[in-house]
Amino acid sequence: MLNDNRLFPADSAARCVAMKLYEAVSSLPIISPHGHTDPRWFAENGAFPNPAALLIQPDHYIFRMLYSQGVSLESLGIPQNDGSQSADPREVWRIFAKHYYLFRGTPTRLWLDYTLENQFGLTGRLGPGNADEYYDVIAKKLETPEFRPRALYESFNIEVLATTDTALDTLAYHKAIRESGWKGRVVPTFRPDSVIDAEYAGFLQNIEKLGEITGENIGTYKGYLNALRSRRAFFKSMGATATDHGHLSAMTADLDAATAESLYGRILSGKSVPQEEEIFQAQMLTEMAGMSVEDGLTMQLHPGSIRNHNRKLYEKFGRDKGADIPSPTEYVRNLRPLLSKYGNDTRLTFILFTLDETSYSRELAPLAGHYPALRLGPPWWFHDSPEGMMRFREQATETAGFYNTVGFNDDTRAFLSIPARHDVARRIDCAFLGRLVAEHRLDEVEAFEVVKDLTVNLVKKAYKL
Amino acid sequence: MLNDNRLFPADSAARCVAMKLYEAVSSLPIISPHGHTDPRWFAENGAFPNPAALLIQPDHYIFRMLYSQGVSLESLGIPQNDGSQSADPREVWRIFAKHYYLFRGTPTRLWLDYTLENQFGLTGRLGPGNADEYYDVIAKKLETPEFRPRALYESFNIEVLATTDTALDTLAYHKAIRESGWKGRVVPTFRPDSVIDAEYAGFLQNIEKLGEITGENIGTYKGYLNALRSRRAFFKSMGATATDHGHLSAMTADLDAATAESLYGRILSGKSVPQEEEIFQAQMLTEMAGMSVEDGLTMQLHPGSIRNHNRKLYEKFGRDKGADIPSPTEYVRNLRPLLSKYGNDTRLTFILFTLDETSYSRELAPLAGHYPALRLGPPWWFHDSPEGMMRFREQATETAGFYNTVGFNDDTRAFLSIPARHDVARRIDCAFLGRLVAEHRLDEVEAFEVVKDLTVNLVKKAYKL
Amino acid sequence: MLNDNRLFPADSAARCVAMKLYEAVSSLPIISPHGHTDPRWFAENGAFPNPAALLIQPDHYIFRMLYSQGVSLESLGIPQNDGSQSADPREVWRIFAKHYYLFRGTPTRLWLDYTLENQFGLTGRLGPGNADEYYDVIAKKLETPEFRPRALYESFNIEVLATTDTALDTLAYHKAIRESGWKGRVVPTFRPDSVIDAEYAGFLQNIEKLGEITGENIGTYKGYLNALRSRRAFFKSMGATATDHGHLSAMTADLDAATAESLYGRILSGKSVPQEEEIFQAQMLTEMAGMSVEDGLTMQLHPGSIRNHNRKLYEKFGRDKGADIPSPTEYVRNLRPLLSKYGNDTRLTFILFTLDETSYSRELAPLAGHYPALRLGPPWWFHDSPEGMMRFREQATETAGFYNTVGFNDDTRAFLSIPARHDVARRIDCAFLGRLVAEHRLDEVEAFEVVKDLTVNLVKKAYKL
Repeated sequence: MLNDNRLFPADSAARCVAMKLYEAVSSLPIISPHGHTDPRWFAENGAFPNPAALLIQPDHYIFRMLYSQGVSLESLGIPQNDGSQSADPREVWRIFAKHYYLFRGTPTRLWLDYTLENQFGLTGRLGPGNADEYYDVIAKKLETPEFRPRALYESFNIEVLATTDTALDTLAYHKAIRESGWKGRVVPTFRPDSVIDAEYAGFLQNIEKLGEITGENIGTYKGYLNALRSRRAFFKSMGATATDHGHLSAMTADLDAATAESLYGRILSGKSVPQEEEIFQAQMLTEMAGMSVEDGLTMQLHPGSIRNHNRKLYEKFGRDKGADIPSPTEYVRNLRPLLSKYGNDTRLTFILFTLDETSYSRELAPLAGHYPALRLGPPWWFHDSPEGMMRFREQATETAGFYNTVGFNDDTRAFLSIPARHDVARRIDCAFLGRLVAEHRLDEVEAFEVVKDLTVNLVKKAYKL
Repeated sequence: MLNDNRLFPADSAARCVAMKLYEAVSSLPIISPHGHTDPRWFAENGAFPNPAALLIQPDHYIFRMLYSQGVSLESLGIPQNDGSQSADPREVWRIFAKHYYLFRGTPTRLWLDYTLENQFGLTGRLGPGNADEYYDVIAKKLETPEFRPRALYESFNIEVLATTDTALDTLAYHKAIRESGWKGRVVPTFRPDSVIDAEYAGFLQNIEKLGEITGENIGTYKGYLNALRSRRAFFKSMGATATDHGHLSAMTADLDAATAESLYGRILSGKSVPQEEEIFQAQMLTEMAGMSVEDGLTMQLHPGSIRNHNRKLYEKFGRDKGADIPSPTEYVRNLRPLLSKYGNDTRLTFILFTLDETSYSRELAPLAGHYPALRLGPPWWFHDSPEGMMRFREQATETAGFYNTVGFNDDTRAFLSIPARHDVARRIDCAFLGRLVAEHRLDEVEAFEVVKDLTVNLVKKAYKL
Repeated sequence: MLNDNRLFPADSAARCVAMKLYEAVSSLPIISPHGHTDPRWFAENGAFPNPAALLIQPDHYIFRMLYSQGVSLESLGIPQNDGSQSADPREVWRIFAKHYYLFRGTPTRLWLDYTLENQFGLTGRLGPGNADEYYDVIAKKLETPEFRPRALYESFNIEVLATTDTALDTLAYHKAIRESGWKGRVVPTFRPDSVIDAEYAGFLQNIEKLGEITGENIGTYKGYLNALRSRRAFFKSMGATATDHGHLSAMTADLDAATAESLYGRILSGKSVPQEEEIFQAQMLTEMAGMSVEDGLTMQLHPGSIRNHNRKLYEKFGRDKGADIPSPTEYVRNLRPLLSKYGNDTRLTFILFTLDETSYSRELAPLAGHYPALRLGPPWWFHDSPEGMMRFREQATETAGFYNTVGFNDDTRAFLSIPARHDVARRIDCAFLGRLVAEHRLDEVEAFEVVKDLTVNLVKKAYKL
């Protein structure tokens, strides 16, 4: 099912170079500096329950496509806000198999095919005819020791895997992993949205809890900042090397102390209006950058997603159900306050992501090709795909070069797709470099250096791993 | 003049697949679910007057290019608002032939070459040297029975052809066609802009006429909505399966009943301000979606064209003279009110178009890859071109898949270009699929299924034909 | 180091055509209608001081990339506002050589490689190992007569070279060139930003000086306009054929006489607010277009650059230090006032540039494919690169054709890069045309005509050279 030359250019000259480059990186270890796997898996190392629960129900790429063609989320066993979830896993799998043709031309299809063949030895195209057989094979494998989380981590040749954790997380599972004696390196990432974004569910209680955990006086802005400093230090002590920030826009601010203090008071009063909350978030990005200069944690910004666009779906099923939609995102004016303050500071590594591809050549590459603190994250979410990754390289490289980028993020909660995703990313980098060499824009010997840098060295450097 | 492999990838592996795929769809019937041909042609079945009147004067793609290079519209015999139109058709044709080199690299050139060779047997490149000869050949053919509208419809292998008709149209020509006993299927499309857009010339008289035709009391919002319902039912009874809406933006609204009623009153008073008119249009899109849920008419939205940008030209020559220019178009926030209400309803098919290609990967594919009611229309107008269609597939497929798209629209008033336009679209789909197969991202057997779906099945399904 | 087929398509069919096309244009003279070389070089014809001063310190493409990776501008000998500049040229060159790998995949790398091999006979890849040797070879050559500015101009086969000069410039160096008897054609370009943009440093003094030079009464709007007319006439008498305008946006206005007069009074009072200054600039674009209709100077607009984004850098090093960043730019609504007035006038040639590639297919090609006065400038600045030029052709040609474009601008202050830049542009045009021919979208014989038009004829026509 999987051709050895998949995703390489059709043209034989470029393909030939791509093949050689791929050979040099295909078996390098996986560095996964940003993702959403569950640390509990590695702490408890229990078996995954069944094929649907492993491969379908946690993967919003999959059920959003099925939903778009009229398949109900109820029939796929997606858990509802009221706790109900009734579908039979095998039935869910059958629905998926019946609609597998919908994924033609999508990255999900590439990831799934890879997983079925390489993890489960299933080499025919999934469809209604083999749905039950495939279900049985997968279900059986999931019962074996080789399919426990830690064994998979090892067989995937992962060198380090970062999770994403809220600022209030006790990191108990991370602690358990570290104390277990297991050699796998699973590190947390500090994600403070829930104590920075006033629209976040339970925001004020979160702030209160932040004070309790840290013993800081969150009644003052200074105390609040110190509480955040304290959590960052704790995360760092538990292995974190980075923070992550999901904001609606890339707006940053640099308020004077009195204004910031007073704004924090408004936020804390629970009477703030949306515009104040937006400026507060903007101010906090700059504060976070300042703390990164202090403690060395690499800073990531993922802006531009309008969350929960589908209200009916949100009310019934909650967050992260495939109804987050990108929107136009401006970086140049928005980032100026932060960059004016910290953009020239080489102690800061600030990685930008986007869901708005128009910013690659117009804003992001010009910014990253100038400011010492800036780096470009890989194509994110909807753009983590062969065409999307190719557009990123084509549109960003000429202005930012390769060395202001940071390699690949799998950014996934679908654990089994990790090797598949890194494989696609490596192949596309090889395809892009293959073309540059075939067009005599880069020497082959240089391309070998670059592809290794993209696969391993730039990731480790940017995330201090 | 026409190479059998035109528009296929230069690379031989991908081209080879594209050729095979094209063979499977090149002779399938033409389904034309959205366009602007004149039903009168098929009702009366008269001869077309002359080459200029048939091929040049109705085609704004052609005369906008000539105009951009200093050729006056007067010299091309474009009719003026005062009724004057003086140019000699042969002279118009000579001007066109002399400037034919301007169309190098444009789709117009591809369509014209196809038409000249396949409809008229003219196989040399048009230019000043053969202008008169070509004029004579075409003029002579136009006098033959084979070049009457119905005969052309049949020889083009058209299965169904939709026209676009204002809400007030009597559909007399459609009636005549149906009563003529001719087997051709020419169906109307319900286009209510002239009774929804308060800036439309004669808007208030149009509303009045709407009341007269339907017998509804357009003095109330309820009566106005019922009048629209009534016209939709009439169009449906005459074969319509779809509505079409041309708005400046994609803004939608979901006002409460009292506010909507009061807004309608303002509009009807003739004293409304532009902002009120915009919200009214926004509200009406949502109402139209609701009626589509009721009556099953597929809904199309064509937003983002700034009409009549060139004021001097508009004053002298009127609408549709190549001076409509696209502008940035936002979908995610604008469509939210409508989608919140009807986006999850599988009875609705809502097809989105755009003149802003940046929305393909950022907004349209993510929306259509989630909401069950949404589908993506094919590349529209300036983007109905080889590169434009390829960008659409490359930028939309990975997130929306093939099955949230609806095949091709020729969208033309240039009747003779219909086979050429469908041919270009089929070739580009084959070229795209050929590359996917050559890059091992899709099996060849699947590509055969997909290309037939894109050519026929998805169109019929989306437009209920 | 330089492969003969660099930048041509990897596919052999398309490459074969590209090679033949390139052979037809590779040795045509260079027409450089827009750039930033220093006329003093050609007036005085002195030797360039050293490799760093010639190749690195004036080239913001180079030092912005080095800076982005932590190399200080001080260490590169970039002059500071306080006049200090201390770095040893050889040391600067070594730093550059050590970091030359950063330019992989960028146009700077292509230009530099071309310059090293073709101008200096240096055929190995630059790096730390050969930095000193290369420095010595270049330094030695710079002392020879063949490397004086006029000799280089001739050896580069330049037919005409336009500089860019402020409205207040005495054009003394241009005068000296003309009086020297040297046959080279170096012409000025009228750039009035400093007397139009109220935010320009020293704006009010500039206006005063404008009055003094021209003897016009700049206290009135009429006198101010006449002063500009007078300067345009002077520039024209010195060989200028074009004006150039760098604005933050593409906004134009068409105020009535009284409003314009009164706005000018506000501007002149020094008390104007930013919004007034913006409208004044907008009004002046329309006035400039009117004067172009009068005097025949071709008009260029370069909008959308946010200048001096990095405040700290600006305070220490001043303008043009690689910290100008593009931003989204709207053309359709913004240009309407000017186009309503002069867009249909075939006496005007108005060339539009952009840093926002999204406007190619959405706004610029549709506008230029309609208005007789409009033409599209080549890809500018960050987009003057292989991928950038290819995107321009792919996204603009289908709507605007080739004949609403104006060939290539090198737009550079890096004199030695001029042949390299034109070579890249010619190769990419050949590559694009090669693909069109290989895909049977254009006849080969036509492609030969087009590539010569793009290289020479369209440039001369648009800039009246």
